[in-house]
Amino acid sequence: MSLPEPSRRDTRLDQYVDAYAERTHGLQVSAVRALFAVANRPEVVSLAGGMPNITDLPREALGQAMERLVRERGVQAMQYGSGQGEPFMREQITEVMALEAIHAHADDIVVTCGSQQALDLVTRVFINPGDVILTEGPSYVGALGTFHAYQAKVVHVAMDDEGIIPQALEQAIVSLRAAGQQVKFLYTIPNFQNPTGVTQPVARRKELLDVAQRHRLLIIEDNPYGLLTIEGAPMPALRSMDADNVIYLGSFSKTFAPGFRIGWVLAPHAVREKLVLTQEAATLAPPVFSQFAISTYLAEFDWKGQIDTFRAMYAERRDAMLAGLAEYMPEGSTWTTPNGGFFVWVTLPEGIDSHAMLPRAVTARVAYTPGTAFYSDGLGSRNMRLSYCFPPPERILEGTKRLGEVIAAELEMNRTFGIAAGEHRHNDLQTGPAPDIS
Amino acid sequence: MSLPEPSRRDTRLDQYVDAYAERTHGLQVSAVRALFAVANRPEVVSLAGGMPNITDLPREALGQAMERLVRERGVQAMQYGSGQGEPFMREQITEVMALEAIHAHADDIVVTCGSQQALDLVTRVFINPGDVILTEGPSYVGALGTFHAYQAKVVHVAMDDEGIIPQALEQAIVSLRAAGQQVKFLYTIPNFQNPTGVTQPVARRKELLDVAQRHRLLIIEDNPYGLLTIEGAPMPALRSMDADNVIYLGSFSKTFAPGFRIGWVLAPHAVREKLVLTQEAATLAPPVFSQFAISTYLAEFDWKGQIDTFRAMYAERRDAMLAGLAEYMPEGSTWTTPNGGFFVWVTLPEGIDSHAMLPRAVTARVAYTPGTAFYSDGLGSRNMRLSYCFPPPERILEGTKRLGEVIAAELEMNRTFGIAAGEHRHNDLQTGPAPDIS
Repeated sequence: MSLPEPSRRDTRLDQYVDAYAERTHGLQVSAVRALFAVANRPEVVSLAGGMPNITDLPREALGQAMERLVRERGVQAMQYGSGQGEPFMREQITEVMALEAIHAHADDIVVTCGSQQALDLVTRVFINPGDVILTEGPSYVGALGTFHAYQAKVVHVAMDDEGIIPQALEQAIVSLRAAGQQVKFLYTIPNFQNPTGVTQPVARRKELLDVAQRHRLLIIEDNPYGLLTIEGAPMPALRSMDADNVIYLGSFSKTFAPGFRIGWVLAPHAVREKLVLTQEAATLAPPVFSQFAISTYLAEFDWKGQIDTFRAMYAERRDAMLAGLAEYMPEGSTWTTPNGGFFVWVTLPEGIDSHAMLPRAVTARVAYTPGTAFYSDGLGSRNMRLSYCFPPPERILEGTKRLGEVIAAELEMNRTFGIAAGEHRHNDLQTGPAPDIS
Repeated sequence: MSLPEPSRRDTRLDQYVDAYAERTHGLQVSAVRALFAVANRPEVVSLAGGMPNITDLPREALGQAMERLVRERGVQAMQYGSGQGEPFMREQITEVMALEAIHAHADDIVVTCGSQQALDLVTRVFINPGDVILTEGPSYVGALGTFHAYQAKVVHVAMDDEGIIPQALEQAIVSLRAAGQQVKFLYTIPNFQNPTGVTQPVARRKELLDVAQRHRLLIIEDNPYGLLTIEGAPMPALRSMDADNVIYLGSFSKTFAPGFRIGWVLAPHAVREKLVLTQEAATLAPPVFSQFAISTYLAEFDWKGQIDTFRAMYAERRDAMLAGLAEYMPEGSTWTTPNGGFFVWVTLPEGIDSHAMLPRAVTARVAYTPGTAFYSDGLGSRNMRLSYCFPPPERILEGTKRLGEVIAAELEMNRTFGIAAGEHRHNDLQTGPAPDIS
């Protein structure tokens, strides 16, 4: 390997193309990403993003707490910290997880730079190029991007309105292993799944754990939204029912604020050791000041009450979205009814290609994420993910109205020009995981 | 791949051992790490750490600035941000780099979770298992750990008191390529190198760049300490002399504070694109609040004056260390004289094994990092890295005194029992990169 003669003029040709690692080939910025830049203009109602609405946080009191933190404990908070995460932070994380019936020891937690990094570290520890990861079809675009970056083969497992179908999971494990594939783990989002909004009931969780145990399959449980229920208490985590076989990923991004970039992994002891060494090679230590800041918030503020405030705010937004969809979606459309989280998954009438329609939607000042972004195999062209987390209710309503008009125009065009119905295949993996659309 | 029958009792056996990726094998916590835990006790003078002394930061005023930040801009500072890093932060980073004669565009910068993550991302983008990375012998333990994590083969290049020897570099490139090896890049720390404290003069830099250009070898320039000169202005960066062929890594950890975990990469355009996509798969976005905090510091505080304060403080500590070494080191010892940074590299008399001596040193209440930690090939047993960054001058003096006594006892024991002189080989790679010793 040697670099070609460097050019003194910036031709924008990539002179390093022969020098990249195999995993880097195919990493490309997509055209859809440029479209999302447009979608961020204020006149566009973006139902595409996954950004939480944090305007309800008590910023004045938080500012005063930060002032005290820096003045009184700045020498520690601004210094290097533990590669595993600060001990007090890990203790507090056990209290957060207890709300979902998890009984964990702080020693088994590794703090990460957002739960995206938790995903990255777990994938790094387990995945060789070509290994298989099972996951919902569809699944979180940011996870697919990370799996792709480690050259994993993602196999989607069919889901219904209670999440992954246990029989489909079992069949996938058996047939893949019979074909000699290394099936490393199941990646699942049991609560208010991204992108479908679907939640696994307790009975379904038990069935999935049973399949995984019988086939000795590790489960990665990703749970950023679990506490943001609309009705009822949080569900017990998969990890609460099986401590040996589940690696749990958590996050403060949705229950507090994403800008601190603090998530975590709870893992069996042996795996935790590998994760800490991997974290140290990756960052030396996860953001230290952020851990002091979040720890201060948890210790001094009514964080559970704040979650209730968030829940009520998101409930109103979900209701606005469901009302808008009922009012404006053309016949033949269906959608999920989430009991929490951020997302509704829409299935459009036959003949609509959500990927192809996106530029026209953005022109009509509404944006969404095409369903193809959430599949590694090109499916999802009749779907779109709509998020109700960020725009206020009246904007959500307006957004669904604009969307209804765009879809109606699309259907009219199809009727006029007789475009064939059926599924289109696209590869939108590189639309994500841009932070504003994940 | 399937997991063995999980045990319900915590036997501390690793049931996941067959499930790990190849890169994970061999990741183990070392015994030396346990020793460093002891070394952190207050009665021990630790000359082992790489923690900056940040007690001089204006914490009261900083706290007030943080209070305003959260109150006035908290909604942005606590939200998700750009995967590349915030635009204002990248603009300010160009001003920091200008002090080392780098003329860069903010668009070519990627903000990272400490410059350790910059190292991680660059390695991920370029290195396939088995690829060769050239570096100083010895080199930064945290870089060796990251290279190791990506299964690179590290080849050390001989250095003298002006850094890497150009002829040795050329010879290594030629002979490795002749042997069919993929030599991907040279990793170098041109200023106050970790662990030797050595700085490349301008003429040496030009020679190294010339060798790299002639052989089309990419250079990764790691520069955390460059602004912390004791005498004279900062040196011009390698990147300032060759924008096409050098990827530059920078950090706020030593010029401001490490707890915010903010570093950066400056890379040619094509590489920068790959790095952003890789950063998004790794963390979605580098710590956002930290960027707002550092940006506020750079905008509202006399950060250049603060660096001068740090320089004077470290100069005093370096002088204490050099005085202590001159006073207490036994005959036959030599050491480097750094003009900045944090470290002095000591070569001990023949027959001393710094790795074997460490437990006895810690018992005598002084700690250092054995030279073997900085080599991937087991060399360095007659060396140790002493850091003067963290303990105050009188403690540094006391530390060198204790160290002198330990070494004298060691030499006496060798004379008594006639232990053979010569180099011992150890593999200390897993001593690091624990944050407190890097």
